[in-house]
Amino acid sequence: MKIAVVAPSCTLRPEAAEAVSAIVASRGDAELVIHPQCFFSDGHFAGSDEARLDALRDVMADDRVDAVWFARGGYGSNRIAEAAARDLPAAARSKIFLGYSDAGFLLAAFHKEGLKVAHGPMVQDVVRDGGEAAVNRALDWLIRRDEASLEPGLTKNRRAMAFNLTVLSHLIGTAIEPDFTGTELLIEDVAEHEYRIDRTMFHVTGSESIRRVAGIRVGRISEIPDNDPAFGHDAESIVRNWCERAGIPFLGHADIGHDAANRVVPFN
Amino acid sequence: MKIAVVAPSCTLRPEAAEAVSAIVASRGDAELVIHPQCFFSDGHFAGSDEARLDALRDVMADDRVDAVWFARGGYGSNRIAEAAARDLPAAARSKIFLGYSDAGFLLAAFHKEGLKVAHGPMVQDVVRDGGEAAVNRALDWLIRRDEASLEPGLTKNRRAMAFNLTVLSHLIGTAIEPDFTGTELLIEDVAEHEYRIDRTMFHVTGSESIRRVAGIRVGRISEIPDNDPAFGHDAESIVRNWCERAGIPFLGHADIGHDAANRVVPFN
Repeated sequence: MKIAVVAPSCTLRPEAAEAVSAIVASRGDAELVIHPQCFFSDGHFAGSDEARLDALRDVMADDRVDAVWFARGGYGSNRIAEAAARDLPAAARSKIFLGYSDAGFLLAAFHKEGLKVAHGPMVQDVVRDGGEAAVNRALDWLIRRDEASLEPGLTKNRRAMAFNLTVLSHLIGTAIEPDFTGTELLIEDVAEHEYRIDRTMFHVTGSESIRRVAGIRVGRISEIPDNDPAFGHDAESIVRNWCERAGIPFLGHADIGHDAANRVVPFN
Repeated sequence: MKIAVVAPSCTLRPEAAEAVSAIVASRGDAELVIHPQCFFSDGHFAGSDEARLDALRDVMADDRVDAVWFARGGYGSNRIAEAAARDLPAAARSKIFLGYSDAGFLLAAFHKEGLKVAHGPMVQDVVRDGGEAAVNRALDWLIRRDEASLEPGLTKNRRAMAFNLTVLSHLIGTAIEPDFTGTELLIEDVAEHEYRIDRTMFHVTGSESIRRVAGIRVGRISEIPDNDPAFGHDAESIVRNWCERAGIPFLGHADIGHDAANRVVPFN
């Protein structure tokens, strides 16, 4: 089992790479190859668009790689997602791709093209409190599809997708938007004001393509900055309210979020 | 000439209402009626959705009102925009509606339904440095369609619309999205990180409906918070870059923004 790590968004912290390499070595059930591009830096990004795309396309085309694990989020994978999903090498179809947050742009683009993708912990999550558990949960799933890693509300016969809410909002209507018809849609977000969550839910639930989902479940919406004055509604009631207005079934909670407890959601 | 002020988003500051009332009184060429709803407060908003919608519908249906001037932005007009544009009273069709920023949701919804709308200074702009000039510019245009108030790059035979970029991004794909075909699209933004501007431009220019515009002009993108590390591209090059990627003509600058110099852009 060979797992390749690339960074389509921001630069991976070397201490995170070291910690995860040590975890993989002590497990002894996989080989982890961290692409040097993960440590590139070009302004906000882990290297130029070209460098990030090249690294991603490299590992996608490599027959020896079984899984592509995104190093971390931040911002930037949308800038290369459409190109990354074009003229797919045959080798890409036998791999699984894992990440979340900004990597959601790639999950969307790849899922749309029929690749196997999942929303779940990334390499840099190791630096969170309890991050080792998040990394082992991701590895258990990448290496042996351990069902204990999965988001517990998933059911085998129901399609599911998971996205950062803000990322989801920004891919609606673009060339990388997947078909949401009949999907159970799990959302989470971090560090957005309540008025922004409200505005984003207005946008997302106002889209005809999203209105075709089977329902929405809400994960953790965390690190919400203070609103002045107090917004008046909490994140969950905001989500419920917009689901109700749009006629989208609200299906309860999801065990995903920007934290170490984040569980795996394979798209299918 | 009777101008009604309502607040579909956040609460109007009383000192702004007083200052603008004094300006209108000293001009002597119009009557300004500030709806009491402008001073309501309900969490983030100038009253509940119902209260804001009722006030707006009141002045829309009032035959004696010639112009509806939005008090200020903030956030919240999207929550009532679709309802406000439904079953329009006949009296709404003879009025002009003026505002910008969050009020862009109403400009979009009303323009889509054939009402006369314009992007331009609002009542609370009076508290800005040089705000009296902004208010007089708005009044000159509301009262006597003074062409000196207009954004100087507009041409008579070219359709134009103007939006806050973030607001524009959030109305794409919703029921209040207007038809952008052949329109010169002017954009501005305030207090958004460069990575957010980049992500929003990805979204906006990735939309098929926006790709039908005649071109994009960029107004002021101001109060950009620091990015750590430095993003690597300034706001104008971000806009140019995404226009280029999407095949949308970049038509240069626009004299609009979240500031006292903000000029009027009638949609047509």
